[in-house]
Amino acid sequence: MTTQKINTLENGMKTTLPMLVTNVLRGVTQNGAPYLTISFQDNTGSIEGKWWDVKPFDEANVKQGKIGMVKVDAILYKGALQLRVHNIDFSESYNVNDFVLGSQYEPEFLKKEIEGFKNMIENSVYRSIVDKCFDFYGEDFYLYPAATKNHHDFVGGLATHVYGMCLLAVDLCKLYPILDLDLLLAGVLLHDMGKIEEYSAPILSEYTPQGKLLGHISIMQAKVYEVTCELGVRDTEEAMLLRHLILSHHGQYEYGSPVLPLVKEAEILNFIDNIDARMNMFDKIYKDLEEGTFAPRAFPLENRTFYKGKGVK
Amino acid sequence: MTTQKINTLENGMKTTLPMLVTNVLRGVTQNGAPYLTISFQDNTGSIEGKWWDVKPFDEANVKQGKIGMVKVDAILYKGALQLRVHNIDFSESYNVNDFVLGSQYEPEFLKKEIEGFKNMIENSVYRSIVDKCFDFYGEDFYLYPAATKNHHDFVGGLATHVYGMCLLAVDLCKLYPILDLDLLLAGVLLHDMGKIEEYSAPILSEYTPQGKLLGHISIMQAKVYEVTCELGVRDTEEAMLLRHLILSHHGQYEYGSPVLPLVKEAEILNFIDNIDARMNMFDKIYKDLEEGTFAPRAFPLENRTFYKGKGVK
Amino acid sequence: MTTQKINTLENGMKTTLPMLVTNVLRGVTQNGAPYLTISFQDNTGSIEGKWWDVKPFDEANVKQGKIGMVKVDAILYKGALQLRVHNIDFSESYNVNDFVLGSQYEPEFLKKEIEGFKNMIENSVYRSIVDKCFDFYGEDFYLYPAATKNHHDFVGGLATHVYGMCLLAVDLCKLYPILDLDLLLAGVLLHDMGKIEEYSAPILSEYTPQGKLLGHISIMQAKVYEVTCELGVRDTEEAMLLRHLILSHHGQYEYGSPVLPLVKEAEILNFIDNIDARMNMFDKIYKDLEEGTFAPRAFPLENRTFYKGKGVK
Amino acid sequence: MTTQKINTLENGMKTTLPMLVTNVLRGVTQNGAPYLTISFQDNTGSIEGKWWDVKPFDEANVKQGKIGMVKVDAILYKGALQLRVHNIDFSESYNVNDFVLGSQYEPEFLKKEIEGFKNMIENSVYRSIVDKCFDFYGEDFYLYPAATKNHHDFVGGLATHVYGMCLLAVDLCKLYPILDLDLLLAGVLLHDMGKIEEYSAPILSEYTPQGKLLGHISIMQAKVYEVTCELGVRDTEEAMLLRHLILSHHGQYEYGSPVLPLVKEAEILNFIDNIDARMNMFDKIYKDLEEGTFAPRAFPLENRTFYKGKGVK
Amino acid sequence: MTTQKINTLENGMKTTLPMLVTNVLRGVTQNGAPYLTISFQDNTGSIEGKWWDVKPFDEANVKQGKIGMVKVDAILYKGALQLRVHNIDFSESYNVNDFVLGSQYEPEFLKKEIEGFKNMIENSVYRSIVDKCFDFYGEDFYLYPAATKNHHDFVGGLATHVYGMCLLAVDLCKLYPILDLDLLLAGVLLHDMGKIEEYSAPILSEYTPQGKLLGHISIMQAKVYEVTCELGVRDTEEAMLLRHLILSHHGQYEYGSPVLPLVKEAEILNFIDNIDARMNMFDKIYKDLEEGTFAPRAFPLENRTFYKGKGVK
Amino acid sequence: MTTQKINTLENGMKTTLPMLVTNVLRGVTQNGAPYLTISFQDNTGSIEGKWWDVKPFDEANVKQGKIGMVKVDAILYKGALQLRVHNIDFSESYNVNDFVLGSQYEPEFLKKEIEGFKNMIENSVYRSIVDKCFDFYGEDFYLYPAATKNHHDFVGGLATHVYGMCLLAVDLCKLYPILDLDLLLAGVLLHDMGKIEEYSAPILSEYTPQGKLLGHISIMQAKVYEVTCELGVRDTEEAMLLRHLILSHHGQYEYGSPVLPLVKEAEILNFIDNIDARMNMFDKIYKDLEEGTFAPRAFPLENRTFYKGKGVK
Repeated sequence: MTTQKINTLENGMKTTLPMLVTNVLRGVTQNGAPYLTISFQDNTGSIEGKWWDVKPFDEANVKQGKIGMVKVDAILYKGALQLRVHNIDFSESYNVNDFVLGSQYEPEFLKKEIEGFKNMIENSVYRSIVDKCFDFYGEDFYLYPAATKNHHDFVGGLATHVYGMCLLAVDLCKLYPILDLDLLLAGVLLHDMGKIEEYSAPILSEYTPQGKLLGHISIMQAKVYEVTCELGVRDTEEAMLLRHLILSHHGQYEYGSPVLPLVKEAEILNFIDNIDARMNMFDKIYKDLEEGTFAPRAFPLENRTFYKGKGVK
Repeated sequence: MTTQKINTLENGMKTTLPMLVTNVLRGVTQNGAPYLTISFQDNTGSIEGKWWDVKPFDEANVKQGKIGMVKVDAILYKGALQLRVHNIDFSESYNVNDFVLGSQYEPEFLKKEIEGFKNMIENSVYRSIVDKCFDFYGEDFYLYPAATKNHHDFVGGLATHVYGMCLLAVDLCKLYPILDLDLLLAGVLLHDMGKIEEYSAPILSEYTPQGKLLGHISIMQAKVYEVTCELGVRDTEEAMLLRHLILSHHGQYEYGSPVLPLVKEAEILNFIDNIDARMNMFDKIYKDLEEGTFAPRAFPLENRTFYKGKGVK
Repeated sequence: MTTQKINTLENGMKTTLPMLVTNVLRGVTQNGAPYLTISFQDNTGSIEGKWWDVKPFDEANVKQGKIGMVKVDAILYKGALQLRVHNIDFSESYNVNDFVLGSQYEPEFLKKEIEGFKNMIENSVYRSIVDKCFDFYGEDFYLYPAATKNHHDFVGGLATHVYGMCLLAVDLCKLYPILDLDLLLAGVLLHDMGKIEEYSAPILSEYTPQGKLLGHISIMQAKVYEVTCELGVRDTEEAMLLRHLILSHHGQYEYGSPVLPLVKEAEILNFIDNIDARMNMFDKIYKDLEEGTFAPRAFPLENRTFYKGKGVK
Repeated sequence: MTTQKINTLENGMKTTLPMLVTNVLRGVTQNGAPYLTISFQDNTGSIEGKWWDVKPFDEANVKQGKIGMVKVDAILYKGALQLRVHNIDFSESYNVNDFVLGSQYEPEFLKKEIEGFKNMIENSVYRSIVDKCFDFYGEDFYLYPAATKNHHDFVGGLATHVYGMCLLAVDLCKLYPILDLDLLLAGVLLHDMGKIEEYSAPILSEYTPQGKLLGHISIMQAKVYEVTCELGVRDTEEAMLLRHLILSHHGQYEYGSPVLPLVKEAEILNFIDNIDARMNMFDKIYKDLEEGTFAPRAFPLENRTFYKGKGVK
Repeated sequence: MTTQKINTLENGMKTTLPMLVTNVLRGVTQNGAPYLTISFQDNTGSIEGKWWDVKPFDEANVKQGKIGMVKVDAILYKGALQLRVHNIDFSESYNVNDFVLGSQYEPEFLKKEIEGFKNMIENSVYRSIVDKCFDFYGEDFYLYPAATKNHHDFVGGLATHVYGMCLLAVDLCKLYPILDLDLLLAGVLLHDMGKIEEYSAPILSEYTPQGKLLGHISIMQAKVYEVTCELGVRDTEEAMLLRHLILSHHGQYEYGSPVLPLVKEAEILNFIDNIDARMNMFDKIYKDLEEGTFAPRAFPLENRTFYKGKGVK
Repeated sequence: MTTQKINTLENGMKTTLPMLVTNVLRGVTQNGAPYLTISFQDNTGSIEGKWWDVKPFDEANVKQGKIGMVKVDAILYKGALQLRVHNIDFSESYNVNDFVLGSQYEPEFLKKEIEGFKNMIENSVYRSIVDKCFDFYGEDFYLYPAATKNHHDFVGGLATHVYGMCLLAVDLCKLYPILDLDLLLAGVLLHDMGKIEEYSAPILSEYTPQGKLLGHISIMQAKVYEVTCELGVRDTEEAMLLRHLILSHHGQYEYGSPVLPLVKEAEILNFIDNIDARMNMFDKIYKDLEEGTFAPRAFPLENRTFYKGKGVK
């Protein structure tokens, strides 16, 4: 028997399926009865549910991060499916990795590919800094998302995003030989690594206090500085350029970069970052969009509403 | 005997060389003597000269667009070479094409390559529109610059820029298969074609009145509309999408796009345009820049001052 | 017996009246019962209604654009009247024109007046372009609104707005003889004509895909270009100036004009457009506003809240 | 014998003409010789002159505001006429009014017309405030300019500008009867009156300290408040509305209005002010502009460069 | 028996307590039953209540500004306490001052202190203007709030804010002797006095029409002008400087200052105003904030979300 | 015999005085003769000189940073004194410290005072971080300026600025006890320390490459991170808060802070920094300003032109 998944639910279905609780809000109806608004997720998508007349025991039991077998009715509400929850059975135990969205790539594939891009770096200063940073963050690099929402917001999102950017970097260096592949690759590999400290966890990720107070850009720049002190390359041109690429990769002051790109590879790093992130957002926007219609406004894309051509690709 | 060229002049040289006059300003010294400030150019660069105590006949004779044999002293003034002009002999006739900067590519190469990209377009509506527009502008497409200054500001600059963008477009469509190569290529090929009407000429290019009052974006959008009427494809989805790409390719209202990119290929067209233009500007900025120093502020690059790393590529 | 109209409904009334359905949203109460939120309209105004416990047959039957006899209770809810719907009878047929807001002017009057303004144009190039565009859009010019909301958002709104602007244009040309009446009138008559393609219909108007992807400014500029090709006046000064007026009439880049006004009549066209639109909005804002109070914030008037003086006009 | 005027000087002329000195800058040549750069003006225009090798006595004698008979050579320098000064004879006395630009209207005409507009105000509160303010500033109202530069920057400019705005106000109230003519006229008549304290004098006008520290908007609002206290109408609706019109007439915070227009007449006052000022600037821009060319950038018109059509009005 | 206060209510409590009604919204449930949403306040805080199934007599009786004995159940709703209202008894009469938030300082203390700061002003012009303004507004100066919300939004808030600013002003003049204490103190004492006319009342304060149409900055500047006319010091340097300080104290055009600070004391007045207001907001934000957490976004602090350190002060 | 100083030079003087060369520009006159434009400085001010007809030997000898005895004529040129240089004798040697502007405080005084503020810090984590950073930069902290121009742009400027801010910080913590003096003092002491790496030297200071590519904010944040690693306090709340204060002390993204102030002490640090810097600029602006006049526009003060009151302090 195949397990029911969120992405195959339909209006009117009465069914039972295992789901991860990603958020819980408690409410009280006008009649004073408590109810829960629960956000659920599995590896095919996410959906919201209401549990009316929830018993005190159950109310206390439902918590963010738990996985249970949920008995539901699926109904259409304001044009979107919603669940009416009747019961959640938390007795069985599940592997959380089966309930999260993941990369289109296997972790082993990403590790091998990124190892390959590291090996392309010929300059030994860049290479040693990159290696030491990868050692420091270890496995987390392949687990963390590249954002808490918007783009690459899934387990392994960070590595997936960096992989896509490495491909682009290599292509651009072929088209425009003036670019220094070593510096650009080192920048691509490290630019977002501070997110491992900016976010709380690979799954159900939130901003940590230091994420908000310092930001991944400054966290990583300081880490690279400390690494260069340890490696005895603190005052090299390479250390300075790599720190500059990390600091400037958001491209504008109002996006949190304290300096603007002032070397050509810094400018291109910002373009590569943007293109790969936006293509990932387009994947999501266009996936289920009907031809000849406009998608809902996309906040991270300057609130624009994208169109899918009719009868053309 | 080899001809003296602008890029080999040195402080203290007294020499004679053929140059194109690109600008003339008339002045009067405190003693009431007339003099000329002349901008010269050949196919290796440009330089400014002063002609003190110029005779009335000579003063009247020196005009923008003329080419003559110029007798000069080269002197260093405020850190840059300047010419003291003693005489200009306009008696011989020259081919203006020998006195302008050109593309790094031969015209024939560009034509063949761009023909190849046109052939990649499989959709017959896009293809027919593209062909008709290329027919209309003919040879001029391979003569006009892509800008009056800043990037690709040379004879053949438009075609050179479009060629660079086509290469990028094909690469990106491979990395991100969600993109429609047909639409993107059609957009790349036509997006700046209106510049042939926006600028006055391939050489010594200025904005025409309609260039200022309408702009190349609106000129080309109207041209494509008219072409689609002629071809009987006015109301096709393809016609609408292609006009949209042309209108939105500057990416922001304040850069003269009346609509923002609302289809994925429009968004990417704006990125491709930007990257290829900026790489061309980097070529010029980094070419003669000393290692470990900053270039002068670059106005079209948000007034930033770019740095060339010391001892690294 | 006179028919009940929306603008005479009062709190507590139980009545029956014919209304046009302009929007329908489906909802489900906490008890799982379906209900409808319906926007109604007649030629005196618009109002929202709730149909609780709607039957499946009725739920399916209620659709945007239909007109029916509606049985309701009017009740005050959050300071505004709302309808409790008990039944809608769609058996009778109505003329949709009796259920939409219209111009204060009769269509025949508007046609005659606008014909008169066309006749004021002495320059034959402007005149022939204007005539050909009016021929192309025909009756629609007198049916479409000038906006989907905010100002002149009713059947005939476009012609009403253009009429008001023509009056202003003639006055201004008398006060400031430096202005060219021919160009200004031609600009006024054509500036918003592209809205006939930007909007879906005279009634229940929405943006079409090409409305969003191209915009009425670019649609009309292209149309005028094509018309000038047909008329053989493509390269005249008049054609260029008229296209410039259309392109620049929003006055600023961020309002969708790809070029700023660069001729005096373009500058004045933008002022005339603004004044006539704002006076129409003031008519609506001040109509029912109590003396000594402020109106709700008006989004299209920079979110300001206008005041009506006490005891003064 | 007719007196030579500035607007009829030509390259090469050696002549003598009476002119007003509007500015003097002292300089020293490389050889240590003193010279003067003098700005001259008469009632036909203004021009700059250089007095090389000026004698100490003459150097001390030349001062802003003096009028003398000047012996000059007119020469073309950088595309504009310039004077070589040989001598200035200050022995004769002149009437300064013959050396300043003036209104196209006679003072008596302006007084009669503005008196007429005052008489149109039927509301006695507005009328009494307006009268008391006109009494207070008296003759100065007909002498001061409306700006130190840009528009209506001549003797009588303030009254000329107010007259033009009154004409427009009356026209608009006819086209849009919702407007209150009394309030609008009172606002037009008083809105810029504070400039009489903001500027130093009708001629050679500069900002006074209170002009810079307070501004004409706040100066006049306070004056009206004080006047309403004297008249015993301090707490009337009319007093409040009129003060609001004065405060908000620049239309935007960044133009120095501490409140935005919040009554319909305030909004229209801002439009009328703008239109009349811009038409005056167009008069100057288009007067000597060659057909088919663009004027120099106009700073107060958002730095735009206006075009004059070829072969059309 | 001690009276129950709002700040000691807890989830599940059934109790009776006297409260001030600060706002009433009328609603109708889906079943057509009327209910009230009431905002209550006492001198310890404020809370919202719902009165379901309210009787018509009670519904009519509950009004903003009344004080009654309220019978309630306190329940937790969406993470905040809310009241279920069962009855309100308005028969007894209360002193409104017992139901409003007040200053941490006694009125007598504030009067004595502010009197002391007035006495520090040695310049007789500043002193006489300050005295006359204090005479005019009298007791209201010690009753009005400094804002309707955000900071010092309580009875006596204006005087409390001014007192805090005087302390800062004296300190800064000691650290930076270049500052003129007389001018700065006069500016501090008068800068916000216009709020007494901008707001409707010390309690339940709203903007008056003149508050919106003129603003406290312009109201006070005009008042000072009128006072200087009465005192015969209209044209003194002191009058001009003090009016400038009032006009410029918001520091930026977009915050409603028609001129920017152009004297050093004006610049410092803006800083002092800002610091004291922000420290008051911090008091409120940090008071109940848990260590190691972020407060909700604070709109008047540029929408930032402030953090309270863990284990440090 | 007392040495001539720059601040006592007068028009017409012929004299000899020792000065530091801070800048040299080489030029050529119209006759081809070389000349030098030299910027001079001593401990009383700075002045520009021209050396006409300079000999090749002298031309080569004059260099930035050298000190010599200069023979000059002082002449008035365009309203400012300028030097005509006749000779420079570099044979004697001077102490550069006698030719630079310095603090109003003795170095020993500043050291003692700042030591005292360090001792006020009771929290041992803050204290140890501060001490280690002061150890690292050592004497340079008391030599570097706080800016290359605008404010505290002299030897010892950094320490002078920090001293002024410490005084303010202590005062504010007394007035507003909610502030944490330990955190605020630590922030004040370290906030600008990165300028020691951002600038090239205490005298004739310029931006270093890492100053431009990283900025003092990021340089110092990384340094503090590295110090906390060494001290074993990397993960303390104190380390995070102190790094946050450094990062956010410019207060806005566009001023180079990658995060906005999110703790109360960070907000106040930004205010203190601003006030002390602006008071230093006011000292310079008001020092020689004539009463009743406006100073030239001050770029770092938002381009405002400050006024000095007449007859008041």
